[in-house]
Amino acid sequence: MDIKSGDTVLIYTPDKKTYLVTVSEGKRMSTHLGELSLGDAIGLEYGSAIYSSLKHSFLVLEPTLEDRMMKVKRFTQIIYPKDAAIIIMNTGIKSGMRIIECGAGSGSLTIALANAAAPGGKVYTYDRSERFLENAKRNVEAAGYGDTVEFKLREAGDGFDETGVDVVVLDLPSPWDGIPAAARALRGGGRIASLSPTYNQIEKAAGVLESHGFVFMETVEVLVRNIRVAYGKTRPEERMVSHTGFLTFGRKALAKARTVTEEPEVESEEPVGAAEEAGDKAEE
Amino acid sequence: MDIKSGDTVLIYTPDKKTYLVTVSEGKRMSTHLGELSLGDAIGLEYGSAIYSSLKHSFLVLEPTLEDRMMKVKRFTQIIYPKDAAIIIMNTGIKSGMRIIECGAGSGSLTIALANAAAPGGKVYTYDRSERFLENAKRNVEAAGYGDTVEFKLREAGDGFDETGVDVVVLDLPSPWDGIPAAARALRGGGRIASLSPTYNQIEKAAGVLESHGFVFMETVEVLVRNIRVAYGKTRPEERMVSHTGFLTFGRKALAKARTVTEEPEVESEEPVGAAEEAGDKAEE
Amino acid sequence: MDIKSGDTVLIYTPDKKTYLVTVSEGKRMSTHLGELSLGDAIGLEYGSAIYSSLKHSFLVLEPTLEDRMMKVKRFTQIIYPKDAAIIIMNTGIKSGMRIIECGAGSGSLTIALANAAAPGGKVYTYDRSERFLENAKRNVEAAGYGDTVEFKLREAGDGFDETGVDVVVLDLPSPWDGIPAAARALRGGGRIASLSPTYNQIEKAAGVLESHGFVFMETVEVLVRNIRVAYGKTRPEERMVSHTGFLTFGRKALAKARTVTEEPEVESEEPVGAAEEAGDKAEE
Amino acid sequence: MDIKSGDTVLIYTPDKKTYLVTVSEGKRMSTHLGELSLGDAIGLEYGSAIYSSLKHSFLVLEPTLEDRMMKVKRFTQIIYPKDAAIIIMNTGIKSGMRIIECGAGSGSLTIALANAAAPGGKVYTYDRSERFLENAKRNVEAAGYGDTVEFKLREAGDGFDETGVDVVVLDLPSPWDGIPAAARALRGGGRIASLSPTYNQIEKAAGVLESHGFVFMETVEVLVRNIRVAYGKTRPEERMVSHTGFLTFGRKALAKARTVTEEPEVESEEPVGAAEEAGDKAEE
Repeated sequence: MDIKSGDTVLIYTPDKKTYLVTVSEGKRMSTHLGELSLGDAIGLEYGSAIYSSLKHSFLVLEPTLEDRMMKVKRFTQIIYPKDAAIIIMNTGIKSGMRIIECGAGSGSLTIALANAAAPGGKVYTYDRSERFLENAKRNVEAAGYGDTVEFKLREAGDGFDETGVDVVVLDLPSPWDGIPAAARALRGGGRIASLSPTYNQIEKAAGVLESHGFVFMETVEVLVRNIRVAYGKTRPEERMVSHTGFLTFGRKALAKARTVTEEPEVESEEPVGAAEEAGDKAEE
Repeated sequence: MDIKSGDTVLIYTPDKKTYLVTVSEGKRMSTHLGELSLGDAIGLEYGSAIYSSLKHSFLVLEPTLEDRMMKVKRFTQIIYPKDAAIIIMNTGIKSGMRIIECGAGSGSLTIALANAAAPGGKVYTYDRSERFLENAKRNVEAAGYGDTVEFKLREAGDGFDETGVDVVVLDLPSPWDGIPAAARALRGGGRIASLSPTYNQIEKAAGVLESHGFVFMETVEVLVRNIRVAYGKTRPEERMVSHTGFLTFGRKALAKARTVTEEPEVESEEPVGAAEEAGDKAEE
Repeated sequence: MDIKSGDTVLIYTPDKKTYLVTVSEGKRMSTHLGELSLGDAIGLEYGSAIYSSLKHSFLVLEPTLEDRMMKVKRFTQIIYPKDAAIIIMNTGIKSGMRIIECGAGSGSLTIALANAAAPGGKVYTYDRSERFLENAKRNVEAAGYGDTVEFKLREAGDGFDETGVDVVVLDLPSPWDGIPAAARALRGGGRIASLSPTYNQIEKAAGVLESHGFVFMETVEVLVRNIRVAYGKTRPEERMVSHTGFLTFGRKALAKARTVTEEPEVESEEPVGAAEEAGDKAEE
Repeated sequence: MDIKSGDTVLIYTPDKKTYLVTVSEGKRMSTHLGELSLGDAIGLEYGSAIYSSLKHSFLVLEPTLEDRMMKVKRFTQIIYPKDAAIIIMNTGIKSGMRIIECGAGSGSLTIALANAAAPGGKVYTYDRSERFLENAKRNVEAAGYGDTVEFKLREAGDGFDETGVDVVVLDLPSPWDGIPAAARALRGGGRIASLSPTYNQIEKAAGVLESHGFVFMETVEVLVRNIRVAYGKTRPEERMVSHTGFLTFGRKALAKARTVTEEPEVESEEPVGAAEEAGDKAEE
């Protein structure tokens, strides 16, 4: 894969720093180890070196998804790649799926969702702040996922335009505000994920999820511990990010799994054909 | 999404157990809550209920990637979804990529890699055990990813057929056996991931990775902690899986990032056109 | 240190199991590796071996505090040594101190507190269940700490008999029931520790502690991870106890630390000599 | 407990900072909230307030063991209270015991050991650096434990003066240097604890411990996670100290626990009276 003008690359310095920059003919970049002519990278294979004015060598790497997520311009706390990874795994997002994200934030999670849904899929991203939404949009476009994402300025409580979506991801201070709309937008068996930093939020959200017909719920937190690997001196790193948020997952059911004896009496009067709807109603 | 004959579904019982079964007309399934006619599910939307002979209701859900991975037939320790999720995130695997997996094991990671690479991508899975490879193949095909994966019976030390691949994932007792072949198979800037349960393995692997031109290396372990969410009684679960393995990541460089003073003298004699190859040689 | 008749010892088997038994002349103990004559241990030094009828050797070790705590007869969830260790460290319990424990449970924490307070100190242990209190008493006496502990049958809400104590430890389902009495019983600067499994409890307890004049509060959870050390194969254990409870600590203040501007106006009318008392009142 | 001249107290500021200072008549302390006359504290009960020149109130608290440990003057990485707590718990240190500490460091662990061993016990602290030993001695004396501790300038490999001690604690870059001397100094059944930051150290130490007759070995790491408790917003703290060191524990056996078939033939020729020594020899 050769580097072209206009490509965004990751410059890796001799002292192991990284910079995300766009390559073009004549563009220069100053570093403490001399000036780089970024045009030198054009036509090289990724992984090659370019040389600074002081003759030091710098590697030109392809940015990974993680690089893209961590380097967005931030107005808000970003979603960490570790959490995005578990959200994508546990909701099963893959190419072709349609996903609603409510709470665009700075767009770092949007980028990860779009990366997993492309090609053929779509991410509908809602935020109530015009400023955040504009910033998220710029970040998503800069990362190359503009075609996969639609941005919508709206409050979570005002509902979503889409129906039959595969996954809804909520990143809201009051996730319960988005749950009724999420339940309506999801297809049967569709998955929901909600991120919240506090115990209070997950406890309240869990109750609202249950009352809106979600089943198979679980809440986790993801801890990634870095290991300092050095010959004869290998050890865990001394400090770590120990909390970003809790992740709650559930699946949209159209009925209830229950034993006969659990069924409230009134339900037995429902006509057979309305069984699913009855199940739904009983939960509200 | 309506359920068709031949679909593999997840049956969710009133007491929150799950079973992965294939639906077909006339097929029956015994449970402690009565017998299910799986054909009843045909034509229903996912998330709907079917009823046992004892009138209890069971939900019919769509299996997620995680369900598929956890329910493979196992001859070996499987790769956990949490580790697969971080591998896919950190290597940036996405639709269209070509990936080598060495150490097919039971195929659970293969399924996750194929899910991320499809459509348009390919996973080349190597294992030296015919028995493991056959089992992995059956598991991958049952999960619906047969078209995306090629299975190859071979020792890691005997090299890979592919070149210019985007990602190599090693799950080997002696990961260093696969590193030279991985370095040859990867394109410039391509990523490697290696899984190992012991610190001894990661320490030795790190040295071999460095000597084969990998840069930007990091080793992590991923801990997922479950939270028991219950109104007024929310708390972390009392027990957890605290170690599955360490994950080591790196990127294939074609040269070295270094200051002029770091360069060994002999290198200045290399002809300019051979710069990339020289970089490689210098590291061995 | 020679072993005497009547000593409680830890028998360590060739297959690394342990048993807590009392040694006496003529007493026999059956194991799957033959019968032991426990009297054989009398007069030996700790760490010595005795031989079973089948000629296998067993070590006779001195039980540590941890052995004593883990081998109590349990009617309730016991307090783990890890949590007891941090409670003792953070409250600064040492020889000579007077401590109230409310919620005797099975007496495992009582044993640890008594071990730290002896000689010269005293542990006053309250429980509302006669059955639990009797069991705790038997466990504490069997561990050899009977002289250091007083047992009292009483509800937390009914107050404690002691005043001017150094430390109060609460292990109650509703820790706030014991906080007012704890505040009265503690000397100025005395420490409180409260154990609770759920976040709901710690949140409510924190508010009540603050309103009763406790300062310098912190809440922690203690995780102990076991490492499997084996030459060339060293790694963290695969499973662990990931939650026992949260520990909340505070110190009893007799006044408030605050800036002039934080003081409510009404207080400025208090006579100067009553400043400390005023501080106290203001918090209730 | 009234505050006397010469007492070391913890000053707790309105903005929740703490300072460890010694109280005396006429001594003044400057803060950003005005000047304190420390003599004002004399005669007050701990937990009382004193007032700055600007009329702000500051609490006068009694320093806990943890405060003492964390506020030593440091030339080296200190041992954290969490690790000291688990060392004291797992080795069962209590009043009256005799303990060898090898590697005095800055004396923070020495203070914790002395606190647990007093009254009646003794801590013998070795270090090969005169500068470290002098600093540790000053810290231990300032904390009030001078009478309980003896300081000795010596290399770990040169052995200890004491025999029949209850516990040996090693805090050495090469713990194996101290293990032979520790094995000689410990009484039968005595406990050893060793602290090391790297996997490599614990693996090597474990082998040497086993060959010197230690049994019942375990290695742990202790993680303390802080919880930010706030009404309606309770959550784990975002960052934590994730690694200080691994703690390895063992007990000194005078013989071996083994089945008949494990015994090497040559041992059966040892005279009965030499059983314990034989046990020892057999392991070397």
